[in-house]
Amino acid sequence: MKRIADSTVRRLSIYLSFLEEIEGEGVLTTSSDDLARLGGTTSAQVRKDLSFFGSFGKRGLGYSVPELAAAVREILGLGKQWRVCIIGVGKIGAALARYAGFADRGFNVTGLYDSDPAKIDHRSGGIAIQTTDDLDKDVRAGKYDIAVITVPAESAQPIVDRIVKAGMKAILSFAPTQLTVPEDVELRTVNMAMELEALTFALTNR
Amino acid sequence: MKRIADSTVRRLSIYLSFLEEIEGEGVLTTSSDDLARLGGTTSAQVRKDLSFFGSFGKRGLGYSVPELAAAVREILGLGKQWRVCIIGVGKIGAALARYAGFADRGFNVTGLYDSDPAKIDHRSGGIAIQTTDDLDKDVRAGKYDIAVITVPAESAQPIVDRIVKAGMKAILSFAPTQLTVPEDVELRTVNMAMELEALTFALTNR
Repeated sequence: MKRIADSTVRRLSIYLSFLEEIEGEGVLTTSSDDLARLGGTTSAQVRKDLSFFGSFGKRGLGYSVPELAAAVREILGLGKQWRVCIIGVGKIGAALARYAGFADRGFNVTGLYDSDPAKIDHRSGGIAIQTTDDLDKDVRAGKYDIAVITVPAESAQPIVDRIVKAGMKAILSFAPTQLTVPEDVELRTVNMAMELEALTFALTNR
Repeated sequence: MKRIADSTVRRLSIYLSFLEEIEGEGVLTTSSDDLARLGGTTSAQVRKDLSFFGSFGKRGLGYSVPELAAAVREILGLGKQWRVCIIGVGKIGAALARYAGFADRGFNVTGLYDSDPAKIDHRSGGIAIQTTDDLDKDVRAGKYDIAVITVPAESAQPIVDRIVKAGMKAILSFAPTQLTVPEDVELRTVNMAMELEALTFALTNR
């Protein structure tokens, strides 16, 4: 398959979010115009984005909402179950372990790790917390598809280095620091504090 | 003041997160090398980033951690209290309304809005939910510094257009869609679902 641009993948996420919304309302067909409006793009771009992955819709009839939603879910890898471990069971880690929206999307949290001895063997969201000493062995055994990093900033890169060395290929980080990974590892970051601080900085310094 | 690059502001957030961490541990001084390591940058870049805002630290002695932390908090606009409204009190909106980390950072949620009549006057995190019909009036009255958008994708742009028209200058969006705002409005987005889907896409299509 051709290398798909990151911006295309982001638009597919946006299309899916819209498709699932109208699917829930019982809408049966939609158009590239409708999809374009939400994605902040053009209907030609929508058709091009989808054409990477096959032939969808009928000229003049638009797209079948359930069919296109299922196809985009499949394209985005949401058609299967993913085994997720959360590393760092602080406030954010514990909230994610309990987050129902995770499981709805096929993300099954099956491992929790923390370096604090006081937390080991306690449960969060029904799963026992393990020591991070077990992490390398568990990752090497192929127990997880995705690692979620919710450790403090200074611990993040060392943990990432360890799990990457053990074979982890997909990482979602909530740690407020810049992380580096080899090219064959997919790293994504979410940082609400940083976005809020960019806002207050702009408000303060305008 | 010179226009500060977005990447500089992001690094300031990273420095602050590290400074607050070591401040909590009682560390009194730090160096541009330490700050650089966390920020994925060089000590020269750290000194340059900070030099935009004044003179910090002493050659050979490094930075005083409490002083630099206070200065960076001030630069990032965290030295004051911000009045925040949350628009859309679904799962994410309600979670944010209760999120203690918000208040710790000076973000005070003082308004909640939803378009669902069944939710109006119910409370979330101690605040009564108002109808979005009140929104334009309340924004125009200058009740809020920051609006957090947690409505469904298709409602996001119309709501943003309304509050921007009413004078809102800073928006944090969790809606899974591309939003546009005028140049004098600061818009930031956080989208965990989108980041996760980018990961599963990469895992599926590698």
